[in-house]
Amino acid sequence: MKAEIISVGTELLLGNVANIDAKDVSEALSELGIDVFFHTVVGDNEGRLRSALEIAEKRADIIITTGGLGPTYDDLTKQTLADYFGRRLIFHEEVAESIREFFRNIRRAEMTENNLAQAMLPEGCTIFHNSCGTAPGCGFRSRGKHVLMLPGPPRECDAMIKSGVVPYLTALSDSVIRSHTIRVYGLGESAVEQRLRPLMLEMRNPTLAPYAATAEMSLRLTAKAHSAEECERMMEPYLERLLDMLGDRAYGTDVGSLEEVCVRALTASGRTFACAESCTGGLLAKRITDISGASAAFLGGSVTYTVAAKRLLGVPADTIERYGVVSAETAAAMAKAAHDFYGADYAAGITGLAGPEGDGSDVPVGTVYVALADGKRVFLRRLSLAKFDRERVRIVAASEALDLLRRVCIGLDPAAEEFGA
Amino acid sequence: MKAEIISVGTELLLGNVANIDAKDVSEALSELGIDVFFHTVVGDNEGRLRSALEIAEKRADIIITTGGLGPTYDDLTKQTLADYFGRRLIFHEEVAESIREFFRNIRRAEMTENNLAQAMLPEGCTIFHNSCGTAPGCGFRSRGKHVLMLPGPPRECDAMIKSGVVPYLTALSDSVIRSHTIRVYGLGESAVEQRLRPLMLEMRNPTLAPYAATAEMSLRLTAKAHSAEECERMMEPYLERLLDMLGDRAYGTDVGSLEEVCVRALTASGRTFACAESCTGGLLAKRITDISGASAAFLGGSVTYTVAAKRLLGVPADTIERYGVVSAETAAAMAKAAHDFYGADYAAGITGLAGPEGDGSDVPVGTVYVALADGKRVFLRRLSLAKFDRERVRIVAASEALDLLRRVCIGLDPAAEEFGA
Repeated sequence: MKAEIISVGTELLLGNVANIDAKDVSEALSELGIDVFFHTVVGDNEGRLRSALEIAEKRADIIITTGGLGPTYDDLTKQTLADYFGRRLIFHEEVAESIREFFRNIRRAEMTENNLAQAMLPEGCTIFHNSCGTAPGCGFRSRGKHVLMLPGPPRECDAMIKSGVVPYLTALSDSVIRSHTIRVYGLGESAVEQRLRPLMLEMRNPTLAPYAATAEMSLRLTAKAHSAEECERMMEPYLERLLDMLGDRAYGTDVGSLEEVCVRALTASGRTFACAESCTGGLLAKRITDISGASAAFLGGSVTYTVAAKRLLGVPADTIERYGVVSAETAAAMAKAAHDFYGADYAAGITGLAGPEGDGSDVPVGTVYVALADGKRVFLRRLSLAKFDRERVRIVAASEALDLLRRVCIGLDPAAEEFGA
Repeated sequence: MKAEIISVGTELLLGNVANIDAKDVSEALSELGIDVFFHTVVGDNEGRLRSALEIAEKRADIIITTGGLGPTYDDLTKQTLADYFGRRLIFHEEVAESIREFFRNIRRAEMTENNLAQAMLPEGCTIFHNSCGTAPGCGFRSRGKHVLMLPGPPRECDAMIKSGVVPYLTALSDSVIRSHTIRVYGLGESAVEQRLRPLMLEMRNPTLAPYAATAEMSLRLTAKAHSAEECERMMEPYLERLLDMLGDRAYGTDVGSLEEVCVRALTASGRTFACAESCTGGLLAKRITDISGASAAFLGGSVTYTVAAKRLLGVPADTIERYGVVSAETAAAMAKAAHDFYGADYAAGITGLAGPEGDGSDVPVGTVYVALADGKRVFLRRLSLAKFDRERVRIVAASEALDLLRRVCIGLDPAAEEFGA
């Protein structure tokens, strides 16, 4: 089975938003073992949508559209597809009722008459209920093709993929794909690929693909077979070899993020964490608390964006005066201050210059010091990220703190200098 | 001039990443008045890339590819396009030297021999230097089409759009498009569209389009003409009418975000801000410090994720005991404590249940209290976001605090209850 995704929305072609829906649909289809060979994006234009449908009908067995189901007048997908595939749009009272119900449940918006236009759906279709919004989706079969329509807002589309699309398509697929993703921190993509190239070239099924993310990379091992068990059997030996080759740079398999690994390691060992952030401005605390259940391990954080705020936390004034706000000594003092202030087992201190402007001193933009205190020792990393923009400097600084926490918490080589006590 | 974007990468079809490059290229092209009617995504597969090129050659004057220029063996774009358009790939020593230079400048990765394969480029092309990575891009003319190739990593692609693509294409465009975006907080998309529908239907040039974002929406007014001045003249009367209709729900025109508006308002009035966050876990501080120059107005923040941390900040123990951690009284006490602790003119306090799990009490998940203290009064908003997931609850909670800060700072109706002192 080959599928093609057609995303409809002029805002995508104007570059106002990225195409998150195509990503989410593709991810779900690959789990089902359904190949996706093309994504197409068209504007809110009937003629060009029809031309995309003509091309897709030649290339795919399953055509999935996202977007253009909303309540506004420029939402043309339903009418165009119904017309193209020869289906009448009819009013579905049960859908109208669930739309009314949705507006009874939320106080943030008033229902408008045009919301009810969303109750018009192709005759004889399977309705996909929208749990996060008002526009329902649907699926039907026509001229040997499976046609599915999903709403554009990514939250609504993603929820409908899980509740409607996956059940609908599961019945159609004859094989399954299973993947394992190994997350790597501290190695660049081409360095990893250099190490693994012979293996990648020899592999056919399972396949191995490297993906770069901000300051991180991951390796996705993917197997296709008739059962999930068979997929797992095929991947197991490769998984072992890869983890063996990557060593402690591989921070997890099938984990969401460094922060998730840290929260799990802390809770598993009953330890706690706190932080004092300067240039990252709360990003480290935010990432830790992105993880549901972080409250069991995260005691608190201070965004000490000023000298006064650093002193309130307990950073000695003379440390800041003698060594400067952006210095290894101040980072270490911030970590120790957060450790004592919050009474945590581990505490991170981050100070640096995220830029784009400097601070008037001779410290170059991109200089960041990341410290981790455990009450006995302080570990320190010195970063020079002159090539990176503000956002990337902040992300890397927070990630370095998380990698340091992960390593110290589970007893690996911290890969950092020991900086006094 | 019509352009089409072809993004190459199996990771896009597997749903590992969203197509950020197509968004960034489209945004730049629309500023240049170049229409983009289609995006296509294909995998790292020569045959399917060729078929996408055949379709694009029929539909577009400008073909822009993103991705597949990397150092790894599955990067096929250059070879395939050079072959399709009949150009030889030749070794460019100056490119090779800039790749060596790049690796001399960064300590984070070692150069590998396959990096130098990136110095092979089509004969007679215009080279686009890569300021953030090693893979150069290029542009050339063939069979009456302009063909541009850009690297896949979004940071590299975006930088190259500005430094290479915009100058290259500016010469080709005969008209310009200018846009103004009005940012709106506190009104849903269909409510806004209901208010503005008659105007939208009547408008042709400029056009008006609504875009929904998380807990926000924006209206993009776009004019096409022969000069930027003419575009501005065409948009001015509409801009006035729109701002008039939206009132204080419109928080800015051509501004990046609520946080940017807040930082600008604070610095303009010489006032300062601090915050105490519970369920948002640092997101509010992070968003404020996303803005370069925030240090002039933001004194600091505390992520008081535990009762102990709240008390360290100065939240009275009996307030928490009597009313509970998630209560209007605790939010107000957090705002007042942050106000006094950091000595800021304004301070926000946020407490709530982001979920997915509850806290054992009878407080429903999605309950959030947002308070803002100015030293004399405390303004409070009570939110019930039961329908939202953890991430969205946190974003909305932080946005409500920012909207409250914006309104109080510039003297608008706070749209919040006054809650004791």
